[in-house]
Amino acid sequence: MIDFDEAYKKVLQHTFDLGMETVPLTESNGRVLAEDIKADRDFPPFNRSTKDGIALNYAAVEKGTVTFKVEGVLSAGMAQQTLSNGPNCYEIMTGAVVPNAADTVIMYEELTIINGTATISKKPKKGQNIHVKGNDEKLGAILLKKGKRVTAADIGVLASVGKAEVKVRRNPKICVISTGNELVEVSETPLPHQIRKSNTLSLAAALADENISATSLHLLDDQEIIENALEEALQHYDVLLLSGGVSKGKFDFIPDAMEALGVRKVFHKVWQRPGKPFWFGVQEELNTVVFSFPGNPVSTFANYHVYFLPWLTNTLGLPHAEHQVILDEPIQIDPPFVRFVQVTVHWEKASLHARLLKDGGSGDLTSLSKSAGFVLLRPKEEPYQKGELVTFIPTQAII
Amino acid sequence: MIDFDEAYKKVLQHTFDLGMETVPLTESNGRVLAEDIKADRDFPPFNRSTKDGIALNYAAVEKGTVTFKVEGVLSAGMAQQTLSNGPNCYEIMTGAVVPNAADTVIMYEELTIINGTATISKKPKKGQNIHVKGNDEKLGAILLKKGKRVTAADIGVLASVGKAEVKVRRNPKICVISTGNELVEVSETPLPHQIRKSNTLSLAAALADENISATSLHLLDDQEIIENALEEALQHYDVLLLSGGVSKGKFDFIPDAMEALGVRKVFHKVWQRPGKPFWFGVQEELNTVVFSFPGNPVSTFANYHVYFLPWLTNTLGLPHAEHQVILDEPIQIDPPFVRFVQVTVHWEKASLHARLLKDGGSGDLTSLSKSAGFVLLRPKEEPYQKGELVTFIPTQAII
Repeated sequence: MIDFDEAYKKVLQHTFDLGMETVPLTESNGRVLAEDIKADRDFPPFNRSTKDGIALNYAAVEKGTVTFKVEGVLSAGMAQQTLSNGPNCYEIMTGAVVPNAADTVIMYEELTIINGTATISKKPKKGQNIHVKGNDEKLGAILLKKGKRVTAADIGVLASVGKAEVKVRRNPKICVISTGNELVEVSETPLPHQIRKSNTLSLAAALADENISATSLHLLDDQEIIENALEEALQHYDVLLLSGGVSKGKFDFIPDAMEALGVRKVFHKVWQRPGKPFWFGVQEELNTVVFSFPGNPVSTFANYHVYFLPWLTNTLGLPHAEHQVILDEPIQIDPPFVRFVQVTVHWEKASLHARLLKDGGSGDLTSLSKSAGFVLLRPKEEPYQKGELVTFIPTQAII
Repeated sequence: MIDFDEAYKKVLQHTFDLGMETVPLTESNGRVLAEDIKADRDFPPFNRSTKDGIALNYAAVEKGTVTFKVEGVLSAGMAQQTLSNGPNCYEIMTGAVVPNAADTVIMYEELTIINGTATISKKPKKGQNIHVKGNDEKLGAILLKKGKRVTAADIGVLASVGKAEVKVRRNPKICVISTGNELVEVSETPLPHQIRKSNTLSLAAALADENISATSLHLLDDQEIIENALEEALQHYDVLLLSGGVSKGKFDFIPDAMEALGVRKVFHKVWQRPGKPFWFGVQEELNTVVFSFPGNPVSTFANYHVYFLPWLTNTLGLPHAEHQVILDEPIQIDPPFVRFVQVTVHWEKASLHARLLKDGGSGDLTSLSKSAGFVLLRPKEEPYQKGELVTFIPTQAII
């Protein structure tokens, strides 16, 4: 039995470098960049018109010219032309390349074109309506840094510089394992003493939210079955997430099986509620870490969010964000357990507030659906007060 | 040209019921429930032991008995047994069915078992350590309501009640369409006057974040090509999201093509920046809505988040959440344009603050990557003040 803070620290000490992999651009959303993304050319790559109108040389305007012979029409996607001295102009569309010898664009609203001659009605500013080559970024500039999680906006940047494939941090290969003879498949009708699996499905869905496609496995409470299956799983996966089988029961074979398979127990049992029987270990030769959560759904979900997600964040090299909420009601937390208390959250103006979930016992089937996350409360003498800032561990997207 | 508020209202007036579809449980994460989810049995479905220890009848304890003959061992997944009167007990594991005639569970820590006889060291409370049948939910109770967006936690509930398949609101079928002769594929090396596609890839990634798998299409700036392709797209999709081709240029064929194909223009151009040339229409016979965004990446992204996402939220029957942030610096917004200003955000305690993105011009290649979203600022005489609450439109997950 160890302290929560010690357990948390130990979990984060057992992260490791999973290396990188190359994925198609369209699959890189949500992944973590394993390379700096550089501009492969200047941006914009040419002097680009930002308006529909005419392109001309300002020197002519300066000399008092107001009529310009239209040499042609330039649209986006046409190669660069060269403006002749006439004084001439080109009609030019937004996104088109400004012709050589032109340096100013005047929009249609400020001119008339009759019989191939444009007459301007307002004196332009030199250089107006041109997005100058290299103005945003120069060839070779770093646009996105290694270690950034790719967003939909980043996909546009990656596309712009031709990254049809992107180097990203490899995600851990994860096997989600349930144990227990009482569990049947979702599609089955359970006998009176049976229940359907749910933890592994919840965990797999939570992992999918992290862009990780996990494998699921169910093991009966049989020492040999468990040892054989775990032996294979330890070889094939970077992480095993187990639920159930870690309590004091006669059929809680996991801790012994792990020991037999060379998984070093880092700790078993933490001064926390829910999730006290949490077992954490590492198979150092195989570089496999094992999170063995208690079978209760709330315990599993709490430990997944409290321990596994920060482990994942660290492993992927992402910064860890600790969030806070304002407690809307008092709560007493007596020693010796750190408590993860389910809360709903709401915004008051721009501040995030939390209310304790009523009847959110660890056995309540739907409490995890009703709550937005947990507040992490260390025991202390005085009650936590209404208005107090506390650590918040979201279990779903808040904003 | 219409006001922002009017444009916004008009977009939300053109939502429609897309009906429902049935998906496998594992694909329902993030989707919107189209059915109430009810308990298919009591939860827990039997009197369930919450500890490892022994199950006995409290009446015997009441009479002063402290030793109980162990009849057998009950583990999770075993059918219910009946306790004989001895006074006897059963060893029982967490999750197992409490036997008939037993009503109390005592954990191992509070007893010893020698030669098949358990001796208790502490008087139990009647009924302790039993999670009583139906205590959480009764058969037929509504566990999750129609209209809820499915979370990882909900997946556990759905699994528990045997929903191997789930009825969800149908997502719109969406085609993301780019136009422009200057655009080449991401994998191509553009000529000096060309650029790579990026908007459609960003939009497709943003839609994937909403669990929508969009089709992408690119059209050259040719009236016939555009009309033919749009005619087919209008038939096959519920929503067309276009970028480019809606300005005043000679090759901006979209508005005319739409009219020719029976798409009623609801509005064209809004008093807003960026994204002024936004065109919105509806093909009423085909029930297809068309969001035609200006081609600039920031304009497209702003309009997608400002208009399309609320449209989607409404169409799926989800509540629309309007968020606020605290401005960390003043900004003057002159009439007549409503402005969507890119910001970064950070937390101060439990409050969300926003800073204006420096150099976040609408042409900047990477500004969308740097910003967390837009603040929506209506023009007003006085500057917005530091500390003022303003509407925030996130473009990525914040917490």
